[in-house]
Amino acid sequence: MEKIVFSPNEGVDIQELERLCLKVGWPKRAPSKVETALKNSFMVASLCLIKEISQPDGSSVEVKRELIGMARATSDHVFNATIWDVLVDPLYQGQGLGKALVEQMIRALLRRNIGNITLFADSQVVDFYKNLGFEPDPEGIKGMFWYPRF
Amino acid sequence: MEKIVFSPNEGVDIQELERLCLKVGWPKRAPSKVETALKNSFMVASLCLIKEISQPDGSSVEVKRELIGMARATSDHVFNATIWDVLVDPLYQGQGLGKALVEQMIRALLRRNIGNITLFADSQVVDFYKNLGFEPDPEGIKGMFWYPRF
Ligand SMILES: CC(C)(COP(=O)(O)OP(=O)(O)OC[C@H]1O[C@@H](n2cnc3c(N)ncnc32)[C@H](O)[C@@H]1OP(=O)(O)O)[C@@H](O)C(=O)NCCC(=O)NCCS
Ligand SMILES: CC(C)(COP(=O)(O)OP(=O)(O)OC[C@H]1O[C@@H](n2cnc3c(N)ncnc32)[C@H](O)[C@@H]1OP(=O)(O)O)[C@@H](O)C(=O)NCCC(=O)NCCS
Repeated sequence: MEKIVFSPNEGVDIQELERLCLKVGWPKRAPSKVETALKNSFMVASLCLIKEISQPDGSSVEVKRELIGMARATSDHVFNATIWDVLVDPLYQGQGLGKALVEQMIRALLRRNIGNITLFADSQVVDFYKNLGFEPDPEGIKGMFWYPRF
Repeated sequence: MEKIVFSPNEGVDIQELERLCLKVGWPKRAPSKVETALKNSFMVASLCLIKEISQPDGSSVEVKRELIGMARATSDHVFNATIWDVLVDPLYQGQGLGKALVEQMIRALLRRNIGNITLFADSQVVDFYKNLGFEPDPEGIKGMFWYPRF
């Protein structure tokens, strides 16, 4: 039996995460840095695929646990949170899991009374986030990135 | 003698900050929440006006210290930082202090090797940040805010 489990804020194995990021084609990042970034994220939500085998006595034993999705948020723990690094294993995309992952994260942030939930969306995922209730440039507010000047 | 001192990451007095926010017309926020937000910000930069009196022996004694500007940033301590709540006392605006405050904060973040420096700019300050080297919507990346659906 297989099931998919969402954890709003549990430890993520750095090597598993590295494999997942590779699968979606993200550039490699130093594991020690990723570890620091996760430690200093307010929330690290994960999706795991769990394989279980049923026992004759009716109970079941976990035989495999695989990380298939992640999202994290930085925050001041009170007013604002910013969601970064949302990803779902390509094998499991298009089944509503990305949506569920972000929705669960929003719920978890609201439970912590964080009202200002923000993110920076790459152009190809703006519609994915619109679908989830995110609005681009509300009241003319602009997302801006600093670039070094040469 | 008066001097203006920039501190990249020092404690800010919550009541002084409250008075400063009032001066620029920001809505009042619970002091205990502001305290938590500052504690969980990666960097809290401040501008203080310091009044000193020269002593006959050539030394000087600080007689007054007033908070006249602040900016803070949330961060994962490695990859990204997001700047929030940039403000300068209206009495001291238009003298280059806001610019210096944000520039010093950028430098301090770069010294910590944080490459992805972002913010969400209200429409009336987009040009202020462009002037500082921030680019709106680079490569079509959109700043997005989550709004509850009714
Ligand atoms: C973006 C991503 C997280 C979406 O996850 P997913 O599990 O495939 O998405 P879902 O199946 O939950 O899709 C939910 C809804 O969004 C839509 N959707 C999914 N990806 C979309 C996209 N790129 N653009 C617009 N809509 C999209 C789906 O059609 C679905 O619509 P519906 O609710 O009307 O049926 C996933 O594609 C991914 O990991 N991509 C690579 C990493 C990435 O680009 N991350 C975001 C940038 S930081
Ligand atoms: C926005 C703010 C921080 C600017 O501080 P400041 O000390 O007045 O700004 P400076 O004097 O350093 O200005 C630096 C440059 O930006 C320009 N500038 C200042 N405010 C600007 C604005 N709102 N729009 C466009 N340009 C602006 C100045 O003309 C100056 O240009 P120059 O370098 O060509 O001379 C200040 O006006 C403020 O606290 N406003 C209220 C709070 C607020 O709106 N914060 C930002 C939203 S979170």
